[in-house]
Amino acid sequence: MDKINFSEKLAKFSDHWSPKVIAEMNDYQFKLVKLEGEFDWHDHSDTDEVFIVIEGSMKIEMEDKVVELNAGEMYVVPKGVTHKPTAEKECKIMLVEPKGVINTGEADSDLTAENDVWI
Amino acid sequence: MDKINFSEKLAKFSDHWSPKVIAEMNDYQFKLVKLEGEFDWHDHSDTDEVFIVIEGSMKIEMEDKVVELNAGEMYVVPKGVTHKPTAEKECKIMLVEPKGVINTGEADSDLTAENDVWI
Repeated sequence: MDKINFSEKLAKFSDHWSPKVIAEMNDYQFKLVKLEGEFDWHDHSDTDEVFIVIEGSMKIEMEDKVVELNAGEMYVVPKGVTHKPTAEKECKIMLVEPKGVINTGEADSDLTAENDVWI
Repeated sequence: MDKINFSEKLAKFSDHWSPKVIAEMNDYQFKLVKLEGEFDWHDHSDTDEVFIVIEGSMKIEMEDKVVELNAGEMYVVPKGVTHKPTAEKECKIMLVEPKGVINTGEADSDLTAENDVWI
């Protein structure tokens, strides 16, 4: 494999809330996503989910708190915890999670993205 | 858990080649490490290993090539591939790998670091 440059990969797409796979490690995937606006409330019943902010700021609303993340910060949403990502302005992040995880989790949503899209 | 700020965590230690755990996702760990100089040749027979450069530059020498990584770049060393990380000047990186992985892999080395050290 070649090395992966986040800026180069981020320049290859412009849609929001639609994760693009950039790497696999064992049965896990690293995905870049651009966020803007509000996502749906959802959870992932089988796995933790890692958010790493590359550029911009975002919030992760949970039932009992809100975490604000800026560039150079990360957060692990524990499995089963209902959460809603939001970003007032466009925010560029990396997700780490097992292969096959659906972006909207258990929620039935128009925001459900196609899985396993590589850039 | 609280959010994790890479700069704050990196300010908490100064030793080289000694990974510090900052987060867990399922049975995987995210570790910060500062590199300077040359590490040992080694491999991890059971797992891929992810290198993400936060600040500075490093090289990963492998038997058939050398990958140079700068800030904002990542590389996945496939399991079983013998590699040697080097950094001419101090480089700050994040590793992602399963819990329990020894930094020097199968190699018997003075550089073997204590595992599971959290900051």
